Amino acid sequence: MSKNLGITPQAEDYSAWYNDIVVRADLAEDSAVRGCMVIKPHGYAIWELMQRALDNMFKETGHQNAYFPLFVPKSFLEKEADHVEGFAKECAVVTHHRLKANPNGKGLIVDPDAKLEEELIIRPTSETIIWNTYTKWIQSYRDLPILINQWANVVRWEMRTRKFLRTAEFLWQEGHTAHATYEEAEEEAMQMLNVYRRFAEHFMAVPVIAGVKSEGEKFAGADHTYTIEALTQDLRAIQAGTSHHLGQNFAKAFGTQFQSKEGKLEYVYATSWGVSTRLIGTLIMAHSDDKGFVAPPRLAPVQIAIIPMGRDEETRAKTIGAADALAAELKAMGWDGVPVRVKVDTREKESPGFKHNDWELHGACFRVELGPRDLESGSVVIAPRLAGEKETVPMADAARVLVEKLGAMQDELYQRALAHREANTCRIDTWEEFTAKFAGEGGGGFVLAHWDGTQETEDAISAATKATIRAIPLVPLAPGDDEPGTCVFSGKPSKGRVVFAKAY
Amino acid sequence: MSKNLGITPQAEDYSAWYNDIVVRADLAEDSAVRGCMVIKPHGYAIWELMQRALDNMFKETGHQNAYFPLFVPKSFLEKEADHVEGFAKECAVVTHHRLKANPNGKGLIVDPDAKLEEELIIRPTSETIIWNTYTKWIQSYRDLPILINQWANVVRWEMRTRKFLRTAEFLWQEGHTAHATYEEAEEEAMQMLNVYRRFAEHFMAVPVIAGVKSEGEKFAGADHTYTIEALTQDLRAIQAGTSHHLGQNFAKAFGTQFQSKEGKLEYVYATSWGVSTRLIGTLIMAHSDDKGFVAPPRLAPVQIAIIPMGRDEETRAKTIGAADALAAELKAMGWDGVPVRVKVDTREKESPGFKHNDWELHGACFRVELGPRDLESGSVVIAPRLAGEKETVPMADAARVLVEKLGAMQDELYQRALAHREANTCRIDTWEEFTAKFAGEGGGGFVLAHWDGTQETEDAISAATKATIRAIPLVPLAPGDDEPGTCVFSGKPSKGRVVFAKAY
Repeated sequence: MSKNLGITPQAEDYSAWYNDIVVRADLAEDSAVRGCMVIKPHGYAIWELMQRALDNMFKETGHQNAYFPLFVPKSFLEKEADHVEGFAKECAVVTHHRLKANPNGKGLIVDPDAKLEEELIIRPTSETIIWNTYTKWIQSYRDLPILINQWANVVRWEMRTRKFLRTAEFLWQEGHTAHATYEEAEEEAMQMLNVYRRFAEHFMAVPVIAGVKSEGEKFAGADHTYTIEALTQDLRAIQAGTSHHLGQNFAKAFGTQFQSKEGKLEYVYATSWGVSTRLIGTLIMAHSDDKGFVAPPRLAPVQIAIIPMGRDEETRAKTIGAADALAAELKAMGWDGVPVRVKVDTREKESPGFKHNDWELHGACFRVELGPRDLESGSVVIAPRLAGEKETVPMADAARVLVEKLGAMQDELYQRALAHREANTCRIDTWEEFTAKFAGEGGGGFVLAHWDGTQETEDAISAATKATIRAIPLVPLAPGDDEPGTCVFSGKPSKGRVVFAKAY
Repeated sequence: MSKNLGITPQAEDYSAWYNDIVVRADLAEDSAVRGCMVIKPHGYAIWELMQRALDNMFKETGHQNAYFPLFVPKSFLEKEADHVEGFAKECAVVTHHRLKANPNGKGLIVDPDAKLEEELIIRPTSETIIWNTYTKWIQSYRDLPILINQWANVVRWEMRTRKFLRTAEFLWQEGHTAHATYEEAEEEAMQMLNVYRRFAEHFMAVPVIAGVKSEGEKFAGADHTYTIEALTQDLRAIQAGTSHHLGQNFAKAFGTQFQSKEGKLEYVYATSWGVSTRLIGTLIMAHSDDKGFVAPPRLAPVQIAIIPMGRDEETRAKTIGAADALAAELKAMGWDGVPVRVKVDTREKESPGFKHNDWELHGACFRVELGPRDLESGSVVIAPRLAGEKETVPMADAARVLVEKLGAMQDELYQRALAHREANTCRIDTWEEFTAKFAGEGGGGFVLAHWDGTQETEDAISAATKATIRAIPLVPLAPGDDEPGTCVFSGKPSKGRVVFAKAY
């Protein structure tokens, strides 16, 4: 039973297990550049599926894509006081625009004559470069709203990196919108939070808590930040997406004013919102197991892997023919509005046993075994990626059954993750219990506790337990969560329970 | 007739006309960063359509997407001798990873303590960082071929920039493949050249000459380079896409060897191939006119603009209702395998006249006018973007007629561009005629002339006329072009005619 797949068991070392999944399932690997990863084709295929689904939702809600420069002039970062604190610290700084042959030896050196007048920062996020442009676009209320999204790479010079979860360069989308009123910007920020929540639940099969960030955890430059928070298998929180109401902060920093309907000059209200390749890390930590990557059907690069078998050329030709026919039927039948993503594994050098493990490792939702005896009996064997028995199904029903199973698996994953979260969410009212919950190296799950609303208490709790406030829920998770109480740390009055956890 | 659209006429100043089209049709604009542009939503929508079409063709030919780091360590550039000559000269160099508050005043300074041990270059192209990775992936012939494409941004610190055609940062795709044999790599390089040719002709409606580059014009690091070359309205060549057979150059630079079927250790053969946002510039210079942007239907963000009219609220409600119904019918009917891209223009502050000009400017393929009298008579008026009369069509036939017209317009644009190229392609056999053809500031078109095959002659011709060898055609453009002759410059023997032009 214990196959040597080169994967450290979860129970032994979750962090090593995560890294093994990423590498062994061919999702990503380290590159020669510190903190930057190579996203391999299998991992990138997940990102493409995520992009397609999100992009459709963005367009359905009236957004268009555009593209702004990779570079941010240093002086732009200085314009918004909080923003600079958050993002100037660790970033990639371009200082020169030329290399030249080393006059004193081999190789290349930076050409001192090619120093830039003003240094350029690789965008860690694009508020500043975009608001510099929006200021030119906006004169009147008739120019509003602006509803734009950008798919891009960004760089934050992180000291401790982990593939997908925190890398120096990562891929993301960043929406940047401009509005005439606070209320309209608020509606937009909430709308996009809900898009992210729907994406997490419907596509990723990951339940999330939607809430607002505390002042200490909000985006640098935001009026307030909304977040969706997922729970990992090792009982830590993962911030999966954020949507910021930026107020008039960037408009004031960049002088973005408009003539209102009433003829008054006013500052524009803004939002920004983003999700990144971190979602792939979130996906892994929600569903995968010791056998490898588990993909929810809606985001599985390969949903069905068909393995035709046969010892001789002639038999193989027959089973491959039947496999190809089933694959064509699945593609034509489709699931969830698109052709089923099916792969017929015709590799000749690999044994059926190797292929079974290999598709489990790579997260195919179902394997179909098709040998000469199956062909004779007019049936196929379906093996699920999740726990469960193999099933023999008449060939004529196979496509229909598989498509039904995809839907059932998507639901099962969500329900399983939801049950996991519910089993690991608790309400704690004493400091003793609170510290005990977060003691040691483990996660601790989500703890709903009362908080007095001050930064001092938040900092003290975090210093004592490493747990931080992940979200102030928008709707109570259970009745009574939003009722007043007493702060678990200070004993002072609290307006309602907030979500604490240790976070990735 | 002469409307003041703010567009310089082509005949007056082609370069100013081009810039006006880009800006006035909302395709792109300058950013605050030298040489970098903002691609606006209307321009980015063209890029998305190009991406979708190309990505489908890449996947149909067996390629997968992946993502490699933005940064190239300086030492990687040094590894391939020709490559470094071509790309180290003008590039963005990251030297530090932190800013800090200026201790002696306001603002931010580069933190001298955060100097990188080795400088990083923003990728001007990714051969080096990718081959560093491929070397780890390839051990045996069974690991080959590798067929990967990447959609990415790249940076080349160009001194003279022009939106879309030559910018410091641009968006592109770069395919990078690895093969066991020279022949297989050659087949791949040719296959991708043909993908680009099909894309240019079928989607862009731009005829291109497919050929091989001379040694002087090939990619830095290639064994040989294939190219497709288009002709602009001002009679210059535009390199629209290139496909490189890299031989074993990068494999040798990075030590990429594999065990062959016969058990021998051999160096891998490579190709790379790319097209970029430059294609949008090519598109503009192929079809647009003094009224604005002309988009071939397959790449038009808005194919049909419906303009409902009416002076009062009640009438407008009726014409808008009819417009929405026609839009829905067009989307459902589809064209070329996708829903028709249709926009109902309900802007209230703008006159019908303004809207007509505005949609001409932005390149809608057909406008549909729908006023109260049309509604009464059960018809609509269709106005083409290209020259031609307005046409009154029964409402019941409108969708079908429009869809037919999209196909006809796509063909017309291609035929028009082909006729333009044929009218401006000539064969010249004397140096006097040759220099006369390329005298002055104008373009000169494509000139097919004999060349002795030497770098010296190529350089001398270029110095004297500014015309360069754009391509050595793969198939003769006309019978006899591939027959031997006498070099137009040196009088020495030539193997066949090559294509000369002034190039963008």
